[in-house]
Amino acid sequence: MTASLPSRRLRSLGLRYQRDAGGARLEILDQAALPDREEWRDGAEPEAMIGHIRALRVRGAPMIGVCAALCLAVQADRGAAPARLREDARALRAARPTAVNLMEAVDRLLPLCAHPEALVQAAEALFEEEVARSEGMATRGAALVQPGEGILTHCNTGGLATSGAGTALAVIRRAHEQGKGVHVWVDETRPLLQGGRLTAWELGRLGIPYHLLPDGAAGLLFARGRVQRVLVGADRIAGNGDFANKIGTFPLAVLARHHGVPFHVVAPRTTVDPSCPDGTAIPIEERDADEVRGLVGRLRWAPADAPVFNPAFDVTPAALVTSWILDDAVLDAEDVAAGALA
Amino acid sequence: MTASLPSRRLRSLGLRYQRDAGGARLEILDQAALPDREEWRDGAEPEAMIGHIRALRVRGAPMIGVCAALCLAVQADRGAAPARLREDARALRAARPTAVNLMEAVDRLLPLCAHPEALVQAAEALFEEEVARSEGMATRGAALVQPGEGILTHCNTGGLATSGAGTALAVIRRAHEQGKGVHVWVDETRPLLQGGRLTAWELGRLGIPYHLLPDGAAGLLFARGRVQRVLVGADRIAGNGDFANKIGTFPLAVLARHHGVPFHVVAPRTTVDPSCPDGTAIPIEERDADEVRGLVGRLRWAPADAPVFNPAFDVTPAALVTSWILDDAVLDAEDVAAGALA
Repeated sequence: MTASLPSRRLRSLGLRYQRDAGGARLEILDQAALPDREEWRDGAEPEAMIGHIRALRVRGAPMIGVCAALCLAVQADRGAAPARLREDARALRAARPTAVNLMEAVDRLLPLCAHPEALVQAAEALFEEEVARSEGMATRGAALVQPGEGILTHCNTGGLATSGAGTALAVIRRAHEQGKGVHVWVDETRPLLQGGRLTAWELGRLGIPYHLLPDGAAGLLFARGRVQRVLVGADRIAGNGDFANKIGTFPLAVLARHHGVPFHVVAPRTTVDPSCPDGTAIPIEERDADEVRGLVGRLRWAPADAPVFNPAFDVTPAALVTSWILDDAVLDAEDVAAGALA
Repeated sequence: MTASLPSRRLRSLGLRYQRDAGGARLEILDQAALPDREEWRDGAEPEAMIGHIRALRVRGAPMIGVCAALCLAVQADRGAAPARLREDARALRAARPTAVNLMEAVDRLLPLCAHPEALVQAAEALFEEEVARSEGMATRGAALVQPGEGILTHCNTGGLATSGAGTALAVIRRAHEQGKGVHVWVDETRPLLQGGRLTAWELGRLGIPYHLLPDGAAGLLFARGRVQRVLVGADRIAGNGDFANKIGTFPLAVLARHHGVPFHVVAPRTTVDPSCPDGTAIPIEERDADEVRGLVGRLRWAPADAPVFNPAFDVTPAALVTSWILDDAVLDAEDVAAGALA
């Protein structure tokens, strides 16, 4: 269907895509199997990809947008009918309701469902755009980091979360590569333990010094003066600068403020949702109770019928943010108050 | 040996003791098997009791002191020779080197090893003293609770940790029994998950409405106005009111202050250490890295070689405490500043 296009091979830490005379293939690294097993899974079929997204085998706001787009590209390359492509696109778009990148990625491809070559090119461009965005965030963010800083981070915001080097973790990685001698404090990030399972794995792989900690232990680090900066990602940024991120982010912002430590959110401009005036308009998905009763599918330690509060995200108000590190700008409170995100 | 004493039957959530014409018996509820199995284990033999304490089948600082004492009482009732009793007492005393209550309990009985009736009475009195202390805290603390409050708590501070109703959880239980319609928010309390394993089980058993949450989710509850009060226990209270408690307590105090929510520490007067001037003098034990890499002995999810920061406690400064709920008084910041704990 897209034989007139030059072949493409796209690789990131968590994604393998290839389109050539033999057809198109897409695989994702199963993030649920890390750090013990590096298992690649087929992501060519929309139904399978939706399953990967829902089961968090592929995760990270920009990453799932790219994966959904490349999945549609494979289908277009394989000759799927426009009506079918549209149906698949809508199903993929609904796989995670808080993920604005996913919706935007799909919305860019939806008008192209009758034009497979254009759709494939647009999807592949999305991958490259994310790489460039990571580069922009890394460059701008690392310029703020001072030598010898202890940097606290939450969840996973690295090469598994985007097609590039990531968001917050890309900044840390760049500062490390610049020889700034940073030390990373990694929240394990209950309930899904992305910090313990993924960020620790990425940092170990990159040779960046770190310690893993229970989420509740961050307070003691602040009290001991071991945290000079907090860098986190975002799932959605509202027009007033409030942002949603993995549950447990907001308490870090409060701790940072209490201790006078700078707190930054690192995200591509695409994470900004100007149609969302402030944090109260961001929907907070509640996830399965079994995630808190134990480790889903592996172990349960709480009572089987324990009532659970398991929100996927919390909202950090703009007032607690020192600066918004985007791919194309670093904004401070004054910029944001003046409408730079609106 | 103690036939002249009236029979005694002592029961708590985690302990069964009986001494009558048929002899003396002691059983403990295996806390390591909770919440799935309620298994009672014989605790009459010192060797067995030492095993229970070391394996955390019995835990909670006041509880292990009472268990060691009643174990010696059973041996005295069964006619153990004074020399043998002294040997057992010393072995029990060393079962957990950091447990001050255990040492104090044994030290009270050691001089009585040649006087079985006196030893039995002293051990049984220890049980009753802990019950009375819980009663004092429950009465004084519950008086502060208003109808319909959402109360956030951390770790396990209930009937499994003492021979009475507990500390912070005893206050919550009394408020519930008074028909105040409280709702409890229970931090799961990583890494050892005492909230998820034990507090959730206790609250379910007592029919007190609750939700279990990942430690990082407490911030969102505050932001939504669902927390009207925080009640936590303490491992040690310094003379200036600073106190050490399970890791993750201090961030709750910072969140409570940020949201204008009252924050109380609940502990018996015996937890106050006037020889300790302030929080900086409280040693913070660092525990095994494998506790954070997974769930010890059951599952690992982080890289096997991940460097870990795993402090057992953090210190909450007196400035963040609304009041200190003791068994014999409720102290406010003014009392504490005036030296009420020194």
